[in-house]
Amino acid sequence: MNDYESMWERLNLDLDAHAALLEVLGKFYGDIYMSQTGRLKGMEYLDFVLSEVHGLRIKELQDAKAGGKKVIGTFCVFVPEELVLAASGIQVGLCAGAEAGRGEAEKILPRNTCALIKSFVGFKLSRLCPYIESCDLVVGETTCDGKKKAYEMFAEYAPVYVMEIPQMKNRCDRELWKAEVLRFKDRVEEVTGNRITASGLKEAIRIVNARRRALQRLNRLRAAAPVPISGRDVLLINQISFYDDPQRFTAKVGELCDELESRVGTGQGIVSEETPRLMLSGCPMAVPNWKLPYIVESSGAVIVGEESCIGTRNTRDLVDEGAGTLEAMLDAIVDRYMRIDCACFTPNTERLEHIVQMAGDLRVRGVIHYALSFCQPYAMEAYKVEKALKAKGLPVLTIETDYGMEDVEQLKTRVEAFVEMLH
Amino acid sequence: MNDYESMWERLNLDLDAHAALLEVLGKFYGDIYMSQTGRLKGMEYLDFVLSEVHGLRIKELQDAKAGGKKVIGTFCVFVPEELVLAASGIQVGLCAGAEAGRGEAEKILPRNTCALIKSFVGFKLSRLCPYIESCDLVVGETTCDGKKKAYEMFAEYAPVYVMEIPQMKNRCDRELWKAEVLRFKDRVEEVTGNRITASGLKEAIRIVNARRRALQRLNRLRAAAPVPISGRDVLLINQISFYDDPQRFTAKVGELCDELESRVGTGQGIVSEETPRLMLSGCPMAVPNWKLPYIVESSGAVIVGEESCIGTRNTRDLVDEGAGTLEAMLDAIVDRYMRIDCACFTPNTERLEHIVQMAGDLRVRGVIHYALSFCQPYAMEAYKVEKALKAKGLPVLTIETDYGMEDVEQLKTRVEAFVEMLH
Ligand code: SF4
Ligand code: SF4
Ligand code: SF4
Ligand code: SF4
Repeated sequence: MNDYESMWERLNLDLDAHAALLEVLGKFYGDIYMSQTGRLKGMEYLDFVLSEVHGLRIKELQDAKAGGKKVIGTFCVFVPEELVLAASGIQVGLCAGAEAGRGEAEKILPRNTCALIKSFVGFKLSRLCPYIESCDLVVGETTCDGKKKAYEMFAEYAPVYVMEIPQMKNRCDRELWKAEVLRFKDRVEEVTGNRITASGLKEAIRIVNARRRALQRLNRLRAAAPVPISGRDVLLINQISFYDDPQRFTAKVGELCDELESRVGTGQGIVSEETPRLMLSGCPMAVPNWKLPYIVESSGAVIVGEESCIGTRNTRDLVDEGAGTLEAMLDAIVDRYMRIDCACFTPNTERLEHIVQMAGDLRVRGVIHYALSFCQPYAMEAYKVEKALKAKGLPVLTIETDYGMEDVEQLKTRVEAFVEMLH
Repeated sequence: MNDYESMWERLNLDLDAHAALLEVLGKFYGDIYMSQTGRLKGMEYLDFVLSEVHGLRIKELQDAKAGGKKVIGTFCVFVPEELVLAASGIQVGLCAGAEAGRGEAEKILPRNTCALIKSFVGFKLSRLCPYIESCDLVVGETTCDGKKKAYEMFAEYAPVYVMEIPQMKNRCDRELWKAEVLRFKDRVEEVTGNRITASGLKEAIRIVNARRRALQRLNRLRAAAPVPISGRDVLLINQISFYDDPQRFTAKVGELCDELESRVGTGQGIVSEETPRLMLSGCPMAVPNWKLPYIVESSGAVIVGEESCIGTRNTRDLVDEGAGTLEAMLDAIVDRYMRIDCACFTPNTERLEHIVQMAGDLRVRGVIHYALSFCQPYAMEAYKVEKALKAKGLPVLTIETDYGMEDVEQLKTRVEAFVEMLH
């Protein structure tokens, strides 16, 4: 038994099932990622982090815990990481993108539940996720019905805390959200045993903003023509941003961007300039959900933007760094998170504006709207997204799918036909 | 063309499709209602109102509108009727329980949308509902993802206004809800052109409470053994409470209860005392959705309670009548509606307590939990309901269905087996 195995055993994972999961993951990664040509040298770091997803990073978390730090897991970009970092905690995203554990999940969840929810519940019930097992607190939120109610069940298995997310953006919503941010601050202080100070929060805001700025730079650079990096690779970078150490990650993305910059400077691309540029929009694609990007990029198109929470929605807005007092910083955090344009809001016209703007900036030839099956917020909003884009003359392909492989051929046919039409 | 037909034409209904709908409705009603024996004489009023559902009541609304009154439609028991009445408006429930129009609805809604949403959208798109066409304002709410996002589309076809419903019951939620009640008050005043005064609101509170008290009395009386009225009939009464004139309706329910009281006094029942007493719990059954009650009561059981919004959830709590000022009355309204135990809240333990209490008070032998397919709040909460009832030794049958007739035989088999087990 190697070191990791004994760590996984201490975390009470199902060792056999877990080994099988890692094997499948490795195979997938090989097919989808390592098969690419012309990758940036900077991707080696990401390949390494991914290969150690349940190994080194978990060991780091365990070592940090042994040193008294607390780990806080989240499922949504609404949870303000700044507060966790300011209390010397570590925040990790628990959003799950694999089918393993689905059978267990379906024992307690309705069949008509989205794959993401089935995945995190299944990972817990099947003892497959060392992140969940490392958490001192698991933070849910009232974004969609499925998650809102699933957390009630999940609370029987994990230390769940739920933040209420408003559904509109009026003054009373901002007040509710501020009350929720303050309630969360209290809980984080309680769990970590550390008080959040103005100087600690200032530093945390700086750290999280720096990561956002690094990813913004990445998004600006990839927009070049010819396209200098695959959409798959950028998705992976976004996925890893949710669980890697933020400062190390930011530095590494910076290095990768330097390399990208020189590539852009010399007009080097990973595909020819004629390759149709597409944008993905919709539900977040949690690691290791690479299904649709792989299909798209194997169908003669290239992805140049992800309008989703594991994409630009998480990096677009910075927290204002001008605030000096703790109170003012908290207000800046409240304001920044209230700008999130998730489909859980009604109305959510900002999202339509962002999508249209982004499609224009990225000079895409079409947009693929992606929703997980049974995700009502995104499936319903697709109607408005399609309308807004078509009004600008942009074709839209609307896809609903899950994490299963049953529909891959069918999706490939639809995507290929869509890409064909764009030529 | 009779008078009603020209009225329907003025309302821009699709006359042919509408005639077909009324015919199906009449046939259903005959099979499900008129076939019953031992009905109360007081049910004649309800039969009459139902037979005139798109006739006389619509004519009354049109006459009221001609006299300057405004009609406000709703889809949820969160919309405070007291405010509408106090502004001399008329409130009608638009919750729809029929499949007609589903084809049209599915052109714009995802397939994975609950039947209730498909129904009201379909009724509008197919021009089948004279209530929707009579509305000066249609009030939606942010209760579930499906409705929240469907109202955004619906707003392209009808004058929609959306109230935000909080998702928890902390102090900040009560504040948000109060802000929303006040915002709604302003809108009602604007639409009706009438200011809401303390005396007007006091009278409105009295009117709505009186209807709730009448239905509470009905629920107390029906709890007798042997059971003096069918569950189907009580469901119909609850359904009609959403669109009939409140004062006339209250008086008629009072008369029916007098009759029921003498029946209970003489120990007269509609089924033998051995018939298993069941309770329904879950999603509201909007008119004319009588499918499951009919199946249950044709399977050797009798329904003695409906834990749903078209049932006790809408009548359990009164608005405190002690308040004297407008401000205090508004607070009483805010508090009363915050007590609603809809599955849209998290957690929603009050509902579990209410269900267990109700099952005990009604001395039921089992509970049928009913959710519309794709209704995540209720389908997920069923897990907790089942757990809470089983802990009390009460069997639970969990059903997910829609308005279609395809699964009737299968449901009948399941219900019969459940009832059999209770003997
Ligand atoms: S899509 Fe909405 S619910 Fe999902 S992570 Fe993003 S903000 Fe949260
Ligand atoms: S994909 Fe949709 S349904 Fe699933 S968790 Fe996210 S918002 Fe909820
Ligand atoms: S079940 Fe909930 S959403 Fe539906 S009518 Fe009742 S309170 Fe409203
Ligand atoms: S039945 Fe469920 S999904 Fe349908 S409208 Fe009501 S709460 Fe929403």
